Amino acid sequence: MSQSPIGTAKPDLDTPALCLDIEAVEANIKRMADLFRDGPVRLRPHAKTHKSPILAQMQLAAGAIGITCAKLGEAEVLAAAGIKDILIANQITGAGKIARLVNLAGYTAVMVAVDDATNVAELDTAAQAKGVRLRVLVELNIGMERCGVLPGEPALALAQRVAASPGLRLEGVMGYEGHTVFIQDPQERREKTEASVELLVDTANLLRRHGIPVKIVSSGSTGTHLITGRYPGVTEIQAGSYITMDSQYRDEVGIDFAYGLTVLASVTSVPAPDRAFIDAGLKTLTRDFGLPKVIDPPGWDLTGLSEEHGHLHRAGGAPLRTGDKVEIVPNHGCTTINLHDEYHVLRQGVLEAVWPIAARGKVS
Amino acid sequence: MSQSPIGTAKPDLDTPALCLDIEAVEANIKRMADLFRDGPVRLRPHAKTHKSPILAQMQLAAGAIGITCAKLGEAEVLAAAGIKDILIANQITGAGKIARLVNLAGYTAVMVAVDDATNVAELDTAAQAKGVRLRVLVELNIGMERCGVLPGEPALALAQRVAASPGLRLEGVMGYEGHTVFIQDPQERREKTEASVELLVDTANLLRRHGIPVKIVSSGSTGTHLITGRYPGVTEIQAGSYITMDSQYRDEVGIDFAYGLTVLASVTSVPAPDRAFIDAGLKTLTRDFGLPKVIDPPGWDLTGLSEEHGHLHRAGGAPLRTGDKVEIVPNHGCTTINLHDEYHVLRQGVLEAVWPIAARGKVS
Repeated sequence: MSQSPIGTAKPDLDTPALCLDIEAVEANIKRMADLFRDGPVRLRPHAKTHKSPILAQMQLAAGAIGITCAKLGEAEVLAAAGIKDILIANQITGAGKIARLVNLAGYTAVMVAVDDATNVAELDTAAQAKGVRLRVLVELNIGMERCGVLPGEPALALAQRVAASPGLRLEGVMGYEGHTVFIQDPQERREKTEASVELLVDTANLLRRHGIPVKIVSSGSTGTHLITGRYPGVTEIQAGSYITMDSQYRDEVGIDFAYGLTVLASVTSVPAPDRAFIDAGLKTLTRDFGLPKVIDPPGWDLTGLSEEHGHLHRAGGAPLRTGDKVEIVPNHGCTTINLHDEYHVLRQGVLEAVWPIAARGKVS
Repeated sequence: MSQSPIGTAKPDLDTPALCLDIEAVEANIKRMADLFRDGPVRLRPHAKTHKSPILAQMQLAAGAIGITCAKLGEAEVLAAAGIKDILIANQITGAGKIARLVNLAGYTAVMVAVDDATNVAELDTAAQAKGVRLRVLVELNIGMERCGVLPGEPALALAQRVAASPGLRLEGVMGYEGHTVFIQDPQERREKTEASVELLVDTANLLRRHGIPVKIVSSGSTGTHLITGRYPGVTEIQAGSYITMDSQYRDEVGIDFAYGLTVLASVTSVPAPDRAFIDAGLKTLTRDFGLPKVIDPPGWDLTGLSEEHGHLHRAGGAPLRTGDKVEIVPNHGCTTINLHDEYHVLRQGVLEAVWPIAARGKVS
């Protein structure tokens, strides 16, 4: 549990502390919800970013139609918090997990992605044995070359299998244009995103021409929400990172949601005037796609992360002393949050709550 | 909690599962302990790797003289398990943490590293107020250019301050030759390691010539244990990774402790005969210094880690199907373990226990 009592001012928090600027988070939630409030595309935010039932409930209260997650363990945490409409945007395989999934389907309207006929048969058998009808989206590979069946005929064939499975209810199709999300040129990002999403929508229409109802056409991310989220035929998007933002989205593709997530660290060592070390290394911050950024104090750069230390270099700011606080914006919020057990929730710079990151580590 | 009951065979574990081959771990513990059982250099293993009181107790039972850790939160977990002689090989700064540290010193013989005169004064004041005598090592920068005072006169000056502080007990000096640990050429690694450690030993002797007793001269890692651990004047080494090993140490510098740590994953998607995806991505495995390695099945390589997926490419093995299990050796055990809540402890391939990774996430 946090060492910092409610009411603590941010500079006095015990460190390293994962901090939520709750006003920025609330503004981000509202801004994205408002973009999709009136349809035709709706918002099903991805909880893999925040891993927190209370943040998911805030997203639903603001207008989201349901929640997306990546793992069965995350879905179980969300369902235990009373969330009713959950997409696991991933394949669930293995007898033990499939048993958990169909049991969960007895409590909440969970959906799961499929891209394999054997997996479809296993899910169908388990759902029938449990007496539930499991909601399914057929996942398509729309150019990322990760999971998913190919668009067109292969997707149709799998959808027909799902439609013929008494234990399953085919809700629609999903994809992920992950290969276009970080294309820096806006025009190229738009063209490649639309080319990907067109494959998804075309396949949805192919299914419909074969008499298979397709209610859901789901894709999209924070990076493409204004492209995929405006594409005719898409029904919902899965944006996640916007809730807290990170320097990766801001710096690489200019997405301008507010920074709602920072790590407060303390200087532990100043061995030279231009060099300092903080108590936040690779167990506190991640560098999946680049280094996190110092936002305070000015004039100091984060130049490296070793296991237990963050390495700072002075580019012109005032000297640092041991015990000084340093505030950092993560490069990748999703994996950074996954290192921490709790959020320090700050309003007007004062600790208002400590929230468990309830789905942290729920990778199974 | 693990979904897998005691007695489960490894291939049937719920995944992803962090697995300890406890026989390999026991052999690694014994092998390293035996190397340093008779001195003059002794072993104080680094618990930042395993974060587990029971593994620390096994290291002590095998002959270690105490435990090293990186964070005050880790020391608190170890102390709560009854461990008595703990080195926090790091600086502790800030009034709140220093208060926790001197309180902990009332229960267990904790030591802390210092490299700053102001920090020394703060520790001294807090220790006197609490009525404890806090054990201190002066940390030297012996070439890694991270924390630490410079060897020679600067270290002497700081040691004299510590020696003059009624609340502190100067136990000795420490360093870390982290810049030599992964030098691949054995001769170059030896020469640069010895040049670094010489700075530490020479400074210890300088202090002694000035009438300051130096009991502890501590440095070293798994990568340099046979160099630093045999260097005259060193009294203890801080090796950590050897207990479970990882592919970084094996592949880069040929350290041949046994692989005791693996991640068991499941295939979730096989979109093409030469491409498969597993349920272990960046929230289950780390790629700090390179990608983890598939050890089973043969003929499949891990070619990438995205947030929720591991990407496998077939280089010649038998086809994979959804639900198949894949066993992987982490590239960096320390940061991989820090992602997980528990060890699956396997003896002869059967689940014997599930151990909490009690100090996971204790970065504060």
